[in-house]
Amino acid sequence: MNRVETPIILVNFKTYAEATGENAVRLAEMAEKANVETGVCIGVAPQFSDIAIIAKKVNIPVFAQHIDPIKYGSFTGHILPESVKYAGAVGTLINHSERRLRLADIDAAVARAREVGLVSVVCTNNASVSASAAALKPDMIAVEPPELIGTGIPVSKAKPEVVTSTVEAVRKIDPEVTVLCGAGITSGEDVAAAIKLGTRGVLVASGIVKAKDPYKVMLEFAEAILRAQS
Amino acid sequence: MNRVETPIILVNFKTYAEATGENAVRLAEMAEKANVETGVCIGVAPQFSDIAIIAKKVNIPVFAQHIDPIKYGSFTGHILPESVKYAGAVGTLINHSERRLRLADIDAAVARAREVGLVSVVCTNNASVSASAAALKPDMIAVEPPELIGTGIPVSKAKPEVVTSTVEAVRKIDPEVTVLCGAGITSGEDVAAAIKLGTRGVLVASGIVKAKDPYKVMLEFAEAILRAQS
Amino acid sequence: MNRVETPIILVNFKTYAEATGENAVRLAEMAEKANVETGVCIGVAPQFSDIAIIAKKVNIPVFAQHIDPIKYGSFTGHILPESVKYAGAVGTLINHSERRLRLADIDAAVARAREVGLVSVVCTNNASVSASAAALKPDMIAVEPPELIGTGIPVSKAKPEVVTSTVEAVRKIDPEVTVLCGAGITSGEDVAAAIKLGTRGVLVASGIVKAKDPYKVMLEFAEAILRAQS
Amino acid sequence: MNRVETPIILVNFKTYAEATGENAVRLAEMAEKANVETGVCIGVAPQFSDIAIIAKKVNIPVFAQHIDPIKYGSFTGHILPESVKYAGAVGTLINHSERRLRLADIDAAVARAREVGLVSVVCTNNASVSASAAALKPDMIAVEPPELIGTGIPVSKAKPEVVTSTVEAVRKIDPEVTVLCGAGITSGEDVAAAIKLGTRGVLVASGIVKAKDPYKVMLEFAEAILRAQS
Repeated sequence: MNRVETPIILVNFKTYAEATGENAVRLAEMAEKANVETGVCIGVAPQFSDIAIIAKKVNIPVFAQHIDPIKYGSFTGHILPESVKYAGAVGTLINHSERRLRLADIDAAVARAREVGLVSVVCTNNASVSASAAALKPDMIAVEPPELIGTGIPVSKAKPEVVTSTVEAVRKIDPEVTVLCGAGITSGEDVAAAIKLGTRGVLVASGIVKAKDPYKVMLEFAEAILRAQS
Repeated sequence: MNRVETPIILVNFKTYAEATGENAVRLAEMAEKANVETGVCIGVAPQFSDIAIIAKKVNIPVFAQHIDPIKYGSFTGHILPESVKYAGAVGTLINHSERRLRLADIDAAVARAREVGLVSVVCTNNASVSASAAALKPDMIAVEPPELIGTGIPVSKAKPEVVTSTVEAVRKIDPEVTVLCGAGITSGEDVAAAIKLGTRGVLVASGIVKAKDPYKVMLEFAEAILRAQS
Repeated sequence: MNRVETPIILVNFKTYAEATGENAVRLAEMAEKANVETGVCIGVAPQFSDIAIIAKKVNIPVFAQHIDPIKYGSFTGHILPESVKYAGAVGTLINHSERRLRLADIDAAVARAREVGLVSVVCTNNASVSASAAALKPDMIAVEPPELIGTGIPVSKAKPEVVTSTVEAVRKIDPEVTVLCGAGITSGEDVAAAIKLGTRGVLVASGIVKAKDPYKVMLEFAEAILRAQS
Repeated sequence: MNRVETPIILVNFKTYAEATGENAVRLAEMAEKANVETGVCIGVAPQFSDIAIIAKKVNIPVFAQHIDPIKYGSFTGHILPESVKYAGAVGTLINHSERRLRLADIDAAVARAREVGLVSVVCTNNASVSASAAALKPDMIAVEPPELIGTGIPVSKAKPEVVTSTVEAVRKIDPEVTVLCGAGITSGEDVAAAIKLGTRGVLVASGIVKAKDPYKVMLEFAEAILRAQS
């Protein structure tokens, strides 16, 4: 994959009830509608067993939440990159704070994603880990201070220095790697702040999934991106 | 679930190329055909992202290869029991030798499987671990000496004492728990031996998935079960 | 080891500052003094690198906090049972809630402890996991509801049913296995309650290590045991 | 710690019988003697419970085989950096191939090592992981292709390109980070080759520990370093 130039809102469905099974499909359809409405790219990362049906129904990028650094073979209960690709995923999170991997496995997972043609988004917790991850040449890095995840306290406003130092550290290692940020993002203002700090977009979960009106929040996020760019 | 009285052949698809995506569907359809032909229950355990389509297409029990002991919530990259159930699974492997779990997590996973109505098959490596697992009251225990997995050296013939001591140990702890065995099972003879040692059936992977003619092997296994019972 | 008949107070030093290096030695000496004073067995479980010096200085049972289920060989950064035994440990915790192990590894660690002559104390979180652990035939089981650890809310008073159901479940599986309980134990009263619920003693950490006067608390615990027995 | 300028032979004792307890002390004494004889720095990495006695007996650098990225607190069975430092270690391996860590934990462990004044040696498996590790600013990186560890096939001769590409990749990220290499090193020739490829020395285990005459091999290694430098 070449450098990701378009801004993106990537919605992590986690294992939220509001984003499992039928609910996951509905949420993905909202994301597609918001994409059509605004032109802003909105990706979704549902659970593994929901990927196939969602990828069939919507025309937006679908991501896996994790892949294992494995090939075809004897790996019961693992996530084969080829398998999520076959189901329709175009990319994958790697090393999310709720699914941390060993360094050698992140290296191998990024390489496997590249091999099968999945966009790799390596999640990190600070600037030095982001620099470290950038050396592995993933497509994107999503920095999320774990202590802010799920709090509603936006990283882009509460810890802007984490975002700017990550953007700078990653650029020094490899300017081709795109930076997203996440944790506590709940309003268009938070998203705009993220863009202004030098990121290409946000990784968001509860801020959208657990919102009263997820569609409205998606629109608000997308419009904030459009304004921040202009 | 009440005690499992019917013999079962449970086919673990692992992440084999021959059992991923389209191939997984085809293999599940063969299993269904062999079930119709012989009346013997044949279950399949495909990868997570293949569960939904397989469960829709075939009328045989579909198992997940693993579940995490979690509830709805913030668990990126995890396997929510509700999610595989929604996709159409009726049961799940737990603690396969390629996906070992901590004891407290096996306990919690068995409990969660019970809660959402999934048949739990806890995999074990010897008689004492099988006894230990039986104390957690899963529906089934599948004992597989790891050193024989994938070798073609059948547990039921190379280590019959592992099977008989497991059957005995489990019965002592909880006679309601059904015992399967696996590892190296490749012929009807191996399956018949497993039944004669007191198990209700076999957990098998490469013996079927990597066979030249998987359907023929399924038939052979099913017929061996019928003969061993009569 | 034969069944443990004597009551025991087992003090887990964790990685507390008050129980590291010199402080660890001092604390172990207090335990020895309290043992001499009361006759009640008080064991200590210091960090690995403190075992040798403590075992040389005091004449009370020293436990490791963990062992890995390994033999001599290529295992960098692992805890070899022979190694802690050589340093002077007479027993070991296994599967503490802060160092949970996979089921097959608990089985192997208990077996290894037996082989090298270390008393095995398997930590558990509830009655069903305790039953499961008992099937592995360790010397002792220490049940500790994780949610009470370090809280000062004593398991023996807040969740007596966890303790009694554990004592009963373990006895059913193997009456030779001794039961301890832990979590939130801070007073002699809590210890007495534990004994009355059918345990042989307590596993305690912050209640003693972080006490203003650890020696006084040890004496109080020991005297409570003496009273509860009479 | 400033950049490590002196060449070093770092001997990982693993959990080898030949390097446990008394044997560990004897081996460390040999290393000290070889150091006195040749002037070449020879460090040893014994098991945790052997650190204190060895650090007291010999006047060469003693390393831990692992530290956990933790502070004083509730961490049963973990390796507190302060604890190994107190026992006399001056440095530590981190992320050995037999004790791989998650990326965020390597970052935190390197930071903790720096805080307490331990030299950090992060083990890696290839050039891209080495670059990634270098971004975390450890004192040293030891690259070891896992498939060669313990084989007697020396990385410096069988895969010189892994060594040179690592040296180059690390220099690009941070020229202050010293590079060692390891895996299959059994002769002075292998050590000389390692130095000529741009490393500061070797990480070695079985090549010395399991040698018939470990002292002789240490001398041979040290002399090879002296020759390679001149």
